Amino acid sequence: MRTRPTLQDAEKFFHHQIPITRAMGVRVVAHDDDQFIVEAPVALNSNHLRTAFGGSINAMATLAAYGCLWLELNEPAFHVVVAESSIRFLRPVREAIRATCPRPDREAWKAFRLRLDEKGKAHIILRVSVAEESLAATFEGTFVVQKT
Amino acid sequence: MRTRPTLQDAEKFFHHQIPITRAMGVRVVAHDDDQFIVEAPVALNSNHLRTAFGGSINAMATLAAYGCLWLELNEPAFHVVVAESSIRFLRPVREAIRATCPRPDREAWKAFRLRLDEKGKAHIILRVSVAEESLAATFEGTFVVQKT
Repeated sequence: MRTRPTLQDAEKFFHHQIPITRAMGVRVVAHDDDQFIVEAPVALNSNHLRTAFGGSINAMATLAAYGCLWLELNEPAFHVVVAESSIRFLRPVREAIRATCPRPDREAWKAFRLRLDEKGKAHIILRVSVAEESLAATFEGTFVVQKT
Repeated sequence: MRTRPTLQDAEKFFHHQIPITRAMGVRVVAHDDDQFIVEAPVALNSNHLRTAFGGSINAMATLAAYGCLWLELNEPAFHVVVAESSIRFLRPVREAIRATCPRPDREAWKAFRLRLDEKGKAHIILRVSVAEESLAATFEGTFVVQKT
């Protein structure tokens, strides 16, 4: 297995591969054995009410899930795409959009890897929470991973 | 009832109220009796596969629904927020993300306006399609409108 990329590597990867993340001010603030966390200032992602734009909140949740998957797969020979997602907005975000994707459950990951190795393609459901002081949004996405 | 804003007015409104739409290159390409349509180039919204980033596609669908609602309400004394949404991605978008929100059904709109006038707050479900040559994504969102 390769060395885990640094926070800066992960951030550069986003900024290079998904350029709109630069305009959004996306930062990777943590990735460890438990979770992958991205953050962006509301100042760059505000809406008509001066809170975070729902589209930016959803994008941050999608990025947290991508980041989590990329790090977990830890090799470039995969395509990862989002197949479907849903999000519930619970309260406004006022300062920073912070999206946390917990690493998938070990058993679920094992089953997913087995399918991926056997079929060359598999899907996995990831859940992301967006919080400021308290929970502000919950996101669930189905991601499809394919060997290239 | 006020005069309907021009395409340029609607576009300026987005760029001013939701600044990330400038970086996304969002344009308002149609709003008429049938629909509200926004478009943005994939060049400014690309992902690691050089197709449209799912987060940008979702943001465009959200904007089409906002635009449709704002024009339909046609007065500034309302807050509009998205409460929840779901999206299915059917195929990659390669050149331009074009999101179309059909105007709500007349009967549904009447019932919604009645609730809004009576209670000062009401919700409505809007459906948006994203298409290039063929349908690429379908979005459904619940939007809450409140008198300010």
